[in-house]
Amino acid sequence: MTTTTPAYDELSGTWLRLHRLGHLQSLAGWDQAANMPPRGNEARAAAMAEMAALLHRMVTDPKLSDQLGRAEQEPLSDLQRANLREMHRQWRASNALPESLVQRQKLATSRCEHAWRTQRPANDWKGFVVNFREVLALGREEAALLSVKTGLSKYDALMDRYEPGMTSAQLDRVFGEVRQWLPGLIQRVIDKQSREAVIDPVGPFPQAAQQTLCRQVIGMLGFDFEAGRLDVSTHPFCGGVPEDVRMTTRFREEDFLGSLMGTVHETGHGRYEQNLPRDLLGQPVAEARSMALHESQSLSFEMQLGSHPGFVKRLAPLLRAAFGDQAAFEAGNLQRLMTRVRRGLIRVDADEVTYPAHIILRYEIERPLIEGEIEPEDIPALWDAKMMELLGVDTRGNFKDGPLQDVHWPESLFGYFPCYSLGAMYAAQWFAAMRRAMPDLDERIARGDLAVVFDWLRDNIWSQASRWTTDELARRASGEVLNPAHFKAHLEARYLG
Amino acid sequence: MTTTTPAYDELSGTWLRLHRLGHLQSLAGWDQAANMPPRGNEARAAAMAEMAALLHRMVTDPKLSDQLGRAEQEPLSDLQRANLREMHRQWRASNALPESLVQRQKLATSRCEHAWRTQRPANDWKGFVVNFREVLALGREEAALLSVKTGLSKYDALMDRYEPGMTSAQLDRVFGEVRQWLPGLIQRVIDKQSREAVIDPVGPFPQAAQQTLCRQVIGMLGFDFEAGRLDVSTHPFCGGVPEDVRMTTRFREEDFLGSLMGTVHETGHGRYEQNLPRDLLGQPVAEARSMALHESQSLSFEMQLGSHPGFVKRLAPLLRAAFGDQAAFEAGNLQRLMTRVRRGLIRVDADEVTYPAHIILRYEIERPLIEGEIEPEDIPALWDAKMMELLGVDTRGNFKDGPLQDVHWPESLFGYFPCYSLGAMYAAQWFAAMRRAMPDLDERIARGDLAVVFDWLRDNIWSQASRWTTDELARRASGEVLNPAHFKAHLEARYLG
Repeated sequence: MTTTTPAYDELSGTWLRLHRLGHLQSLAGWDQAANMPPRGNEARAAAMAEMAALLHRMVTDPKLSDQLGRAEQEPLSDLQRANLREMHRQWRASNALPESLVQRQKLATSRCEHAWRTQRPANDWKGFVVNFREVLALGREEAALLSVKTGLSKYDALMDRYEPGMTSAQLDRVFGEVRQWLPGLIQRVIDKQSREAVIDPVGPFPQAAQQTLCRQVIGMLGFDFEAGRLDVSTHPFCGGVPEDVRMTTRFREEDFLGSLMGTVHETGHGRYEQNLPRDLLGQPVAEARSMALHESQSLSFEMQLGSHPGFVKRLAPLLRAAFGDQAAFEAGNLQRLMTRVRRGLIRVDADEVTYPAHIILRYEIERPLIEGEIEPEDIPALWDAKMMELLGVDTRGNFKDGPLQDVHWPESLFGYFPCYSLGAMYAAQWFAAMRRAMPDLDERIARGDLAVVFDWLRDNIWSQASRWTTDELARRASGEVLNPAHFKAHLEARYLG
Repeated sequence: MTTTTPAYDELSGTWLRLHRLGHLQSLAGWDQAANMPPRGNEARAAAMAEMAALLHRMVTDPKLSDQLGRAEQEPLSDLQRANLREMHRQWRASNALPESLVQRQKLATSRCEHAWRTQRPANDWKGFVVNFREVLALGREEAALLSVKTGLSKYDALMDRYEPGMTSAQLDRVFGEVRQWLPGLIQRVIDKQSREAVIDPVGPFPQAAQQTLCRQVIGMLGFDFEAGRLDVSTHPFCGGVPEDVRMTTRFREEDFLGSLMGTVHETGHGRYEQNLPRDLLGQPVAEARSMALHESQSLSFEMQLGSHPGFVKRLAPLLRAAFGDQAAFEAGNLQRLMTRVRRGLIRVDADEVTYPAHIILRYEIERPLIEGEIEPEDIPALWDAKMMELLGVDTRGNFKDGPLQDVHWPESLFGYFPCYSLGAMYAAQWFAAMRRAMPDLDERIARGDLAVVFDWLRDNIWSQASRWTTDELARRASGEVLNPAHFKAHLEARYLG
């Protein structure tokens, strides 16, 4: 068989091999969290490092550079051209950094992260900074190299790894806008909620009943158990491969809601993966678009749909069936329980109203940190000031519930934080678009007619994978690029309506 | 660092990489059987095939030939030389066959095995032979090529893949001896047992209680749950890696004994793997010696120890705790239950007394089949005659419980069957050696002092891995090479004593 696109075909074959070998790596990562006995860890780490090195060698093979160049000249379809664009992006990300920098980063982050585990409970900011300075220096070095290769600013070049196309200019505009109305909105919601009584559910909630409930609910949400599993791990995540999605959750007998809504969250990730275009699986164009887009799916499931009053009404009888009748399970009370807003110190415990405050703060610190405008020593004072400004809480001297609370900085994941809030905003934007297309959306959800939601997400997000830039995907799906007004309208309707 | 063994060191590095990547492959195989949802199968098969091809490329890399040659000339320690010998054996096995033959065999066995799944229940011997003829032709081709490379006879060259060093000359002697006394022994045992009353346990036996019991028992047997797991799969096996052993079992609510003893069997495999020498893991010299040696461990656990009257006595109270009190759980009755001997048609259902008859029959057919002395058409008549001779049962016209009962021939696993019975014989030989060293062994087992058994196996078998040839290992462990007299003595003591 002759082909008019030999270089493209070669590349496509390479990425299919990467996908297949990546399957084994991904499965091993899931198993490590969900199954692996403790004494298996050393061998597993060695096996996964060997595979990581192998995958890295494949994507840094010198012949790829030439193939990518030649493929540009070949008569490609639009879809193939989009695939080539994504191949190029992945290739550039893997080839931009010298091996020695990658190695030094691995050592520094592993040292910093390991020490952080004990420094955090000990509130030892000073000890942390010693290691973190090295992580930051290497992060800046990485940012500088990526900046040269991409033509982006240093911070934007780091963010591009998670959220291609997003820039700090756009973020400054979007977060700047949210910053204006968020503190006032939080205050109004808290005032309103202070006048509402909420009944807490009474545990314990047996793990077996929770597990059955979770399976029921994610079944309602369309997760395909023939092509995926739900297991237990310390830190819930969604892993595996699109063809076999492995979600995890954790159960606490005194609180079922955290585990249930956490599982609903992972189900959004899971359905995105399960519904990526099958015929192109293995090609970069068939991968999920970005971290924010992924989070827009988990939050569409957890916040837009899962915490929707119409959905909560349908949840109530399931809770009674699982745990017996309780006053707390009355639908209105359940809805109030699930939407309680509180100013807190901890990002991962934050509700959807206060969450963006935690993200904006981190963004406003890590961007100048990477650009070299501030130093680690400046973080605590900035943290205190911004927490006071955005949430009105005092964090002075409390490092462990302040800048020591996240694993992201010790692990050099600079540029990742914004994706969380971008995801929440995109999710609100998708549901606003759905409501424009289907004015009776809320009644449908209340009737349990969830297929309309899934169909919209499948058509507009899941099936589109990485075919378009994120802006183009958002325009096609919702008629506009990211617009935080929808997120504001969502919060106002749900919390002040 | 300079080294005086550069070629050996290169080889050793290659095998460490093979071990690490093989870890991921092995884990994926276990997951496929124990966890994978049905729609994940295609992607998993593609991923594992990609990895198999990669591992094959690594071990057929042309530079290995030269390195193996140069390493022979290097100043190696005895252990390194043993490792080099095993590298050479693996390399030869992977390099002896042209890729085209391997591909044709894959197709033929997959076609034959697939059709066999329906041909067996349909008793369709004629249909089976059509496909099997092709499998056999390729098996003979493989045997001829391996024979040239190894200087062994054709059948011996195939057997060498599973049981290095074993020859049909030795097998003829060993099986010939067993053949003399086995039919008479079976008759005497059946006569004796016909005068004994046995009470059957009354189910159902809830799966959760069975699971708890299994864990208790394999814990007593020293399986390290910090370095392995027990899960459920359709066909029980012991997989994973030495650092993280994955055993599986299956539960049937109407019969706990099959699952319990099956798990005890896998525990023997599991402890062998868990106790291979840690400092050399990844090197061929640190791998389990052979299939028969592996089976000698599972049968040491299941038959020698697990069905030992002293051990059965300790099992009885555990059964009562798991399932409530039953007359069947009285230790003497339990022992009789576990050692009932019956002449049957099916190998996998056979007890330890009749089992060798099934193996000898298969060996006496597959050896001349490979050597070209008989053809597939000759199998049914030979099967009937030998079943009558060895077990006195009539199998005429019953192909599905005759030559169609095993997956081995459709899958071209010629030379594998003998390992099962060799394992049983070695197991008896190990326990005879233990009794010579510890005349109070049986009292110790009855007291629950199992450590002496495990210590002996660790010192003599597990820790020795592939350091010695099998004959040398047997001599070091028990003072002699394989001697079926110990197996005979074991059967006589247990069944006629």
